[in-house]
Amino acid sequence: MAIAAEVAAEGAGATSVPELLFLLITILVAAKVLGELAERIGQPAVLGELIAGVIVGGSVLGLVDPQNEVIHLLAEIGVVILLFEIGLETDLRQLVKVGGASTAVAAAGVVLPFALGYGVSIALGLGQLPAIVAGAALTATSVGITARVLSDLGRLQEPESQIILGAAVIDDIVGLIILGVVAGLVAGEEVTVGGVARITAAAFGFIIVVLVVGRLVVPPLFAMLARLGRQETVATMAVVLAFFIAYLADAAGSALIIGAFTAGLLLQPTPQAAMIEEGVVRLGHFFVPIFFVTVGAAVDVRSFGQLDVAMVGVALIAVAVIGKFAAGYAAIWFKGRKSVIGVGMIPRGEVGLIFAQLGLTAGVLSVGEFSALTLMVMVTTFLAPPLLKALFPRTARREPPPRSGIAGLTTEA
Amino acid sequence: MAIAAEVAAEGAGATSVPELLFLLITILVAAKVLGELAERIGQPAVLGELIAGVIVGGSVLGLVDPQNEVIHLLAEIGVVILLFEIGLETDLRQLVKVGGASTAVAAAGVVLPFALGYGVSIALGLGQLPAIVAGAALTATSVGITARVLSDLGRLQEPESQIILGAAVIDDIVGLIILGVVAGLVAGEEVTVGGVARITAAAFGFIIVVLVVGRLVVPPLFAMLARLGRQETVATMAVVLAFFIAYLADAAGSALIIGAFTAGLLLQPTPQAAMIEEGVVRLGHFFVPIFFVTVGAAVDVRSFGQLDVAMVGVALIAVAVIGKFAAGYAAIWFKGRKSVIGVGMIPRGEVGLIFAQLGLTAGVLSVGEFSALTLMVMVTTFLAPPLLKALFPRTARREPPPRSGIAGLTTEA
Repeated sequence: MAIAAEVAAEGAGATSVPELLFLLITILVAAKVLGELAERIGQPAVLGELIAGVIVGGSVLGLVDPQNEVIHLLAEIGVVILLFEIGLETDLRQLVKVGGASTAVAAAGVVLPFALGYGVSIALGLGQLPAIVAGAALTATSVGITARVLSDLGRLQEPESQIILGAAVIDDIVGLIILGVVAGLVAGEEVTVGGVARITAAAFGFIIVVLVVGRLVVPPLFAMLARLGRQETVATMAVVLAFFIAYLADAAGSALIIGAFTAGLLLQPTPQAAMIEEGVVRLGHFFVPIFFVTVGAAVDVRSFGQLDVAMVGVALIAVAVIGKFAAGYAAIWFKGRKSVIGVGMIPRGEVGLIFAQLGLTAGVLSVGEFSALTLMVMVTTFLAPPLLKALFPRTARREPPPRSGIAGLTTEA
Repeated sequence: MAIAAEVAAEGAGATSVPELLFLLITILVAAKVLGELAERIGQPAVLGELIAGVIVGGSVLGLVDPQNEVIHLLAEIGVVILLFEIGLETDLRQLVKVGGASTAVAAAGVVLPFALGYGVSIALGLGQLPAIVAGAALTATSVGITARVLSDLGRLQEPESQIILGAAVIDDIVGLIILGVVAGLVAGEEVTVGGVARITAAAFGFIIVVLVVGRLVVPPLFAMLARLGRQETVATMAVVLAFFIAYLADAAGSALIIGAFTAGLLLQPTPQAAMIEEGVVRLGHFFVPIFFVTVGAAVDVRSFGQLDVAMVGVALIAVAVIGKFAAGYAAIWFKGRKSVIGVGMIPRGEVGLIFAQLGLTAGVLSVGEFSALTLMVMVTTFLAPPLLKALFPRTARREPPPRSGIAGLTTEA
């Protein structure tokens, strides 16, 4: 009582400790219950978490206000940890190996959805900037969801799966650079070729400088930490590194999550990576659902009933599916089932949601446009698992689904 | 850039994501570096974390403002998780087994330091309420620090150690009830026998009701969760249970941390306890140092130079050591080294700091009085390990120090 009362009295409008506990209880229970239910019906848990957010959010139960400062900050910590985790699982050398086919699929999978999404948005009367955000949100494949579904089907080692995974990883990197560009545009910079080039250069430049300097500094630093410090210290310092590079990225004019992702890339080849990932995934199980639930909570379900929102949503879903499915055929020399690759590229997920969230927070997207984009992410996430299952039946030798790692975070967290 | 700018623009005076990252980087780096350094010189890491807080806090570097709303809330989540963890490691049946000696030592170890602390405070001119808070802060032995030191010395299985641990655990429970009482008093209730009895009844009553109802509900609930859900879901739901019972405790007029501790007691005997603890300890490594660093950051080192603060501090340290050392002789029938028991009871730690923090936040303690109490906690924490080492030399068969669990949290987190 007393402790809570004191805290509550500290500032008008401030969140008290019991209020924060209530919000965290609501968010975590809703996320876990709907996440587990989603898995029961063969869907990724992240879909359940988004629906959980819609239910506890402003337009249904009104329990969680995604604008609450503390919850918003915890959600941002969640997305920083999520992108750090994606980086920790991204092996740059692996991308080089899967090579041409993945690159072709990834390139087509960025260009086609962006062009189609932008075109359809302009045709439906959206402005220049909302159309760019919508197109950008269509580009990024969810590597977490795709990897998890392929693993559940016991198909992770098939050539189609390798191409999908390689392309999804490239997509993620390109998506992050697009995010940097779009974040700059959304912040009010002119939509000029020079401006785009400058932001692209800043995004690429930041990653390159950090990767070059970091490769020299980070592995010896963490080797020393592992020798001198406790295991928990190494994992905590890895999170600190992610926060630090995210902070630098922000200061350098790039995006926080690009910094977090780059920190993951730097640590991925170190001998400490597995130990670090174990600790980071645990933190992620707490913080990441806060992000997905607040994204869901920002959706106004009443806006789905509006004809224009429904039209934009359906149009975006159509081009999202068509764009990625067509991209599956980009590696024309590949002899396997191209339809499988196309379907495997369909689920959007975390990066798509980040674009939508960015657009909404910056005031570039209306609530209706934001809701239409969220609907697109939800439907594409929902469509891919049953379609993949139909095209690419489960093998007898079923691999155990990954319980930790990025698949664990994005689909089970 | 853009993301951060948007967030910063949300509210005047609000903490932006980069600002929060900067604070977390500062807190975690300082805590880990000084924690590891403390261990190098044979001291518990928690001492290093407190000193880290003093250094980054307002009176030295001024990097971390412990009044920052978000940091304060994260620190409170940290202390809730810490007390949950203490509960998870507290076996009520074990206490019954070590029995009489522990109870005698614990009782004397509460009564003597409280009486001495209260008396000395009144003699030095403190008011009634500050003297009660000071006396209360002297009562609780740090079970985490004591357990860790005994384990480091390879002495955990000696009869002296068993008595110390049993008494320290009883102390923790009694300390929490005293905390509930003091929190009530500090909130402005009259210091009457009836009032104290009522708050004691509420504190006991809450624990009893929650333990009785919880024993019926919690084990089957978590058995079901373990059967139906993923391991991560079980651990997250355990944290949610701790938040929920903490919330109930607050609503029932008890203290948040009593609820969190009771949640730990409920889960301790379940088959899921080890799995839960693993997940909770990871979260604790992130949140708990925020608590200790903000406690350190609230210390005004300049006040140590003031004659009255120094006098109160030295007097409290003297009675803190004398009170607990004398309590070690309370089990007069015990044949072993009573001096070892007395010294093992000396370190205060987390609960002592919670009292000090509570008194400061409520405005009952002046900054000088708060600083004197924090000095007492730091010095007693600092004194015990070398004294114990001298009286109770390390055995050849050295047990590995616990890497997880409460010792890990309080001394390494």
